[in-house]
Amino acid sequence: MVTEPNNWGRFGPDDQRGTLNLLTPEAVLRALACARTGRVLSLSMPIRGATSSPAPTTVPHLRGRPLPQHFMSVDGGDYAAGARAIGAGLRMADDALVVTHHGTTTHMDALCHMWEGEELYNGHPSGRVRSYGATRCGIEQVGGVVARGVLFDVPGHLGMAHLPADFRIEAALLEEINPGVRQGDVPVIRTGWPLTWPDTYWTGQPGLSPSAGRWLAARDVAAVASDNAAIGGLNADQLADEGLEDDLHLILLHRHGIHLVEMLWLEELAAAGPADFVFVAAPLKIEGGTGSPLNPLAIL
Amino acid sequence: MVTEPNNWGRFGPDDQRGTLNLLTPEAVLRALACARTGRVLSLSMPIRGATSSPAPTTVPHLRGRPLPQHFMSVDGGDYAAGARAIGAGLRMADDALVVTHHGTTTHMDALCHMWEGEELYNGHPSGRVRSYGATRCGIEQVGGVVARGVLFDVPGHLGMAHLPADFRIEAALLEEINPGVRQGDVPVIRTGWPLTWPDTYWTGQPGLSPSAGRWLAARDVAAVASDNAAIGGLNADQLADEGLEDDLHLILLHRHGIHLVEMLWLEELAAAGPADFVFVAAPLKIEGGTGSPLNPLAIL
Amino acid sequence: MVTEPNNWGRFGPDDQRGTLNLLTPEAVLRALACARTGRVLSLSMPIRGATSSPAPTTVPHLRGRPLPQHFMSVDGGDYAAGARAIGAGLRMADDALVVTHHGTTTHMDALCHMWEGEELYNGHPSGRVRSYGATRCGIEQVGGVVARGVLFDVPGHLGMAHLPADFRIEAALLEEINPGVRQGDVPVIRTGWPLTWPDTYWTGQPGLSPSAGRWLAARDVAAVASDNAAIGGLNADQLADEGLEDDLHLILLHRHGIHLVEMLWLEELAAAGPADFVFVAAPLKIEGGTGSPLNPLAIL
Amino acid sequence: MVTEPNNWGRFGPDDQRGTLNLLTPEAVLRALACARTGRVLSLSMPIRGATSSPAPTTVPHLRGRPLPQHFMSVDGGDYAAGARAIGAGLRMADDALVVTHHGTTTHMDALCHMWEGEELYNGHPSGRVRSYGATRCGIEQVGGVVARGVLFDVPGHLGMAHLPADFRIEAALLEEINPGVRQGDVPVIRTGWPLTWPDTYWTGQPGLSPSAGRWLAARDVAAVASDNAAIGGLNADQLADEGLEDDLHLILLHRHGIHLVEMLWLEELAAAGPADFVFVAAPLKIEGGTGSPLNPLAIL
Repeated sequence: MVTEPNNWGRFGPDDQRGTLNLLTPEAVLRALACARTGRVLSLSMPIRGATSSPAPTTVPHLRGRPLPQHFMSVDGGDYAAGARAIGAGLRMADDALVVTHHGTTTHMDALCHMWEGEELYNGHPSGRVRSYGATRCGIEQVGGVVARGVLFDVPGHLGMAHLPADFRIEAALLEEINPGVRQGDVPVIRTGWPLTWPDTYWTGQPGLSPSAGRWLAARDVAAVASDNAAIGGLNADQLADEGLEDDLHLILLHRHGIHLVEMLWLEELAAAGPADFVFVAAPLKIEGGTGSPLNPLAIL
Repeated sequence: MVTEPNNWGRFGPDDQRGTLNLLTPEAVLRALACARTGRVLSLSMPIRGATSSPAPTTVPHLRGRPLPQHFMSVDGGDYAAGARAIGAGLRMADDALVVTHHGTTTHMDALCHMWEGEELYNGHPSGRVRSYGATRCGIEQVGGVVARGVLFDVPGHLGMAHLPADFRIEAALLEEINPGVRQGDVPVIRTGWPLTWPDTYWTGQPGLSPSAGRWLAARDVAAVASDNAAIGGLNADQLADEGLEDDLHLILLHRHGIHLVEMLWLEELAAAGPADFVFVAAPLKIEGGTGSPLNPLAIL
Repeated sequence: MVTEPNNWGRFGPDDQRGTLNLLTPEAVLRALACARTGRVLSLSMPIRGATSSPAPTTVPHLRGRPLPQHFMSVDGGDYAAGARAIGAGLRMADDALVVTHHGTTTHMDALCHMWEGEELYNGHPSGRVRSYGATRCGIEQVGGVVARGVLFDVPGHLGMAHLPADFRIEAALLEEINPGVRQGDVPVIRTGWPLTWPDTYWTGQPGLSPSAGRWLAARDVAAVASDNAAIGGLNADQLADEGLEDDLHLILLHRHGIHLVEMLWLEELAAAGPADFVFVAAPLKIEGGTGSPLNPLAIL
Repeated sequence: MVTEPNNWGRFGPDDQRGTLNLLTPEAVLRALACARTGRVLSLSMPIRGATSSPAPTTVPHLRGRPLPQHFMSVDGGDYAAGARAIGAGLRMADDALVVTHHGTTTHMDALCHMWEGEELYNGHPSGRVRSYGATRCGIEQVGGVVARGVLFDVPGHLGMAHLPADFRIEAALLEEINPGVRQGDVPVIRTGWPLTWPDTYWTGQPGLSPSAGRWLAARDVAAVASDNAAIGGLNADQLADEGLEDDLHLILLHRHGIHLVEMLWLEELAAAGPADFVFVAAPLKIEGGTGSPLNPLAIL
């Protein structure tokens, strides 16, 4: 469900939330009923500061994107070297984060992240997406998502460790794996591609085909989540092969207002193999943001 | 509940999670049963980019702390000015965030955030908290919290719009408001102090007294959350008046391993006034982080 | 002198450098002849990382601007706490800087920093100033400035420690102090305002009047430098009182292509009191930047 | 010459500046006499923002280092999309820079950047290099360098476009190219390696041999500058092959207090081929910094 707006009021309320609106309070209660064991899993990859460390070689990310940087303004090392404690002996460590989440870590795309022409989802003018934030379709509109999660473990279904780079998941295969996707669900698509890091990760990426995107859109899902970087597949140049008509971001995000959650870590979830579960996403309330780094949770 | 570790493996597993371990799967299921209406509220203040804008005057924060900065690497304005679309017409906006969350926005403190002497919570050496991250007690150990939330609307109980700056909430007052706090709960303490922004916000802050901290610790709560900046109160110099023995961070975070969630926005929650609710926190999986910006959710 | 372009070539060469073009090689040689003693002074304020420190209270800056943040990815403290050296024993410390220089530290403005209507200096379209950099009039066009510096110590001339906040320096006063400004010079205007930090710094700022701006523009100076934040004066709201026609940035930067250098530290230079000197500015070659943090040098 | 300290006073003055102290005012005057034509060249590579752009593929840098990020908080695109001007029509663009200069762009190393054991250059304790800056040997101590530059165009001398990756420049070769290096000079070593970008740049790097380092140290040079990334050579793993005794940073920076300037762009300078010239470096006055991004100038 989309949380209700609070009274911060910089940006006017408007009808911009897309299919998350399908998540009525009743749907939230139905989603919560999918928790059977109470086990909670994080579906997030780690955010690993890249500055003077081998981090870039240890965490999956798209080539050429600026990796997260993580710093401390004061830390235990400083005290070991003689830094004075606060007052009578209090010691603290404070950190700072620089993150450009698209393509570098687990994140959620806002409805203002991608479009064609001069209109965002639902006709909002794209000129409202400015350097200082988007006044339409920003990530702060999401609030929080509590929905039924449905796992599509595609390589598991096919008896593979992971899908090959050029594999495109067709609608028929989704239907075969789980025909029971319902309005307001969050399908979680496992490709297994993060397991190829760092060996062949940059050779391309498997992902949904346009038919699969349309199949999901037709079922009015609330969001689509995957462990790949772009929901659709990528070629070796890290670009989609589809034209505009068939682009997965345009089909889902732009035309249907379906939020996307990308670069998940799904291995523990796949090993547990629940029929369904509670999917929770609480993106940072970045006003006018095109997305947010995210720690999605699965409650089994 | 603390999520189970995935196999990223940079930092070895260890017993460092504090009272979040009280959150067994059974406790998670009991917590979920507190959802009655399915309404979902975000308890987060907005993250408002502060560069070239009046943002610093519009969002509560501690004086002198570096405010979040939010940028776009390309946006709708650029296309309006003639930037070329990608391929046949795809347009996108990508953002970046610089955030030092302690004191500037809604966040969760990791167990490595504060200590006295040379040991973190549970005896972990403080020298493991280094510039490139903490290898003990980092925020990535939290995974996700799903617990029963219990609201203590202190000014509401006292018939005030907000507590005065020098108000310290004693244990007896918490007991009077809600004696039924149980092991594994997340007490959510409302002071109403954000309502004073910007008028008197920097004159000090109301908060828990040491007796209240000990009362909560004795009940084995999983975490403590508040709309003030430091759980305890602050004087006009933005410092705690208590000595080390009575410092709220040391009582809760350091001695009992109780995570802290600070700078919440609780006005809608207080207006709804639920007896209890599902409290969800999913901090970013920042490896070795002293905390994380957060969008806590309340499921009523 | 403007340095000659190298062959990086992302942005095409064009006639966009403004009056810096007055600095012919011959003028550079004449400027160098102003060095008499060989003493070198930095005219820069310090860049002081603001993260967990009292820095915001110790360095002059405009209210509400994001202060520089300075981090180490590894440092001596980490080694004191047991971090492993590289190879057989090499130790290093690496830092990182986040800086939004306008209004926070000594810097130089590029010709794309300010304009009216839809054209930058010299008719370049303002739409070329985009989120990913300006393809016209960026700071990388400057290269380096080597010119004759001429000090206008206005409070010194008037027998004051510093000018009052509402003081506007008229053309006649500049003429009185030094009628000998020549084409290609860099007038360095001392107001003494940094000495008021932190007491009354935010009550306004003294600066050049429109008549003074026109007087300098008429003399074809290469750049104008000052220890105030905006060349012109500021009121208590940190805004200029002049209309568009009389705005100092528009008179100098926009209409005459005269680069501006702001927030200098001029106390040692004023104490030395040279008739003239070599002024050197080497802004970072930030492609498409609206400016650069700067360490201007005076060679006496 | 090292500029004289101003009165900012956070860090106490001490004898920590290394051989830059050789640069007396008299030496500065002698250096200025090397300017013959007045032509000014920037020796800097561009700083090219890497977010959402192909920049990482277009600028030489060490593999895995976080590239500079450059943002605008407001720009011409925003006005094209309808952003309101300030007051009666003033428009401005303001930028922000995130830069970790070591290994990513032209920069100067401070004396606190590298050491062995527990002492920096001149016996200063390495524990003073902390997360919030170094209180000994920080880059702010440099002030400004104005010295005689002497070009060693090694590939030019050998009739090569650039040195091969495994080429190590011996002392005898420096002596052969220019035996006249004097105390206080800044030798500028051209390897031509940036010309290999991006083809073979990451296969290693040519650089000075230990004998060359000792030869320069014996001549009391003020600083050593090069177009490679580490003064010494690098292997394909981006590491030096030398042991501690022979490490170029330790020989020059640590044992002799000779500042290093790395990743220069020297092609125009080499084409001009001056016998000597004025070398100017004005690093940002980052308090306690391990270095600074830099735009070094050559005045011919």
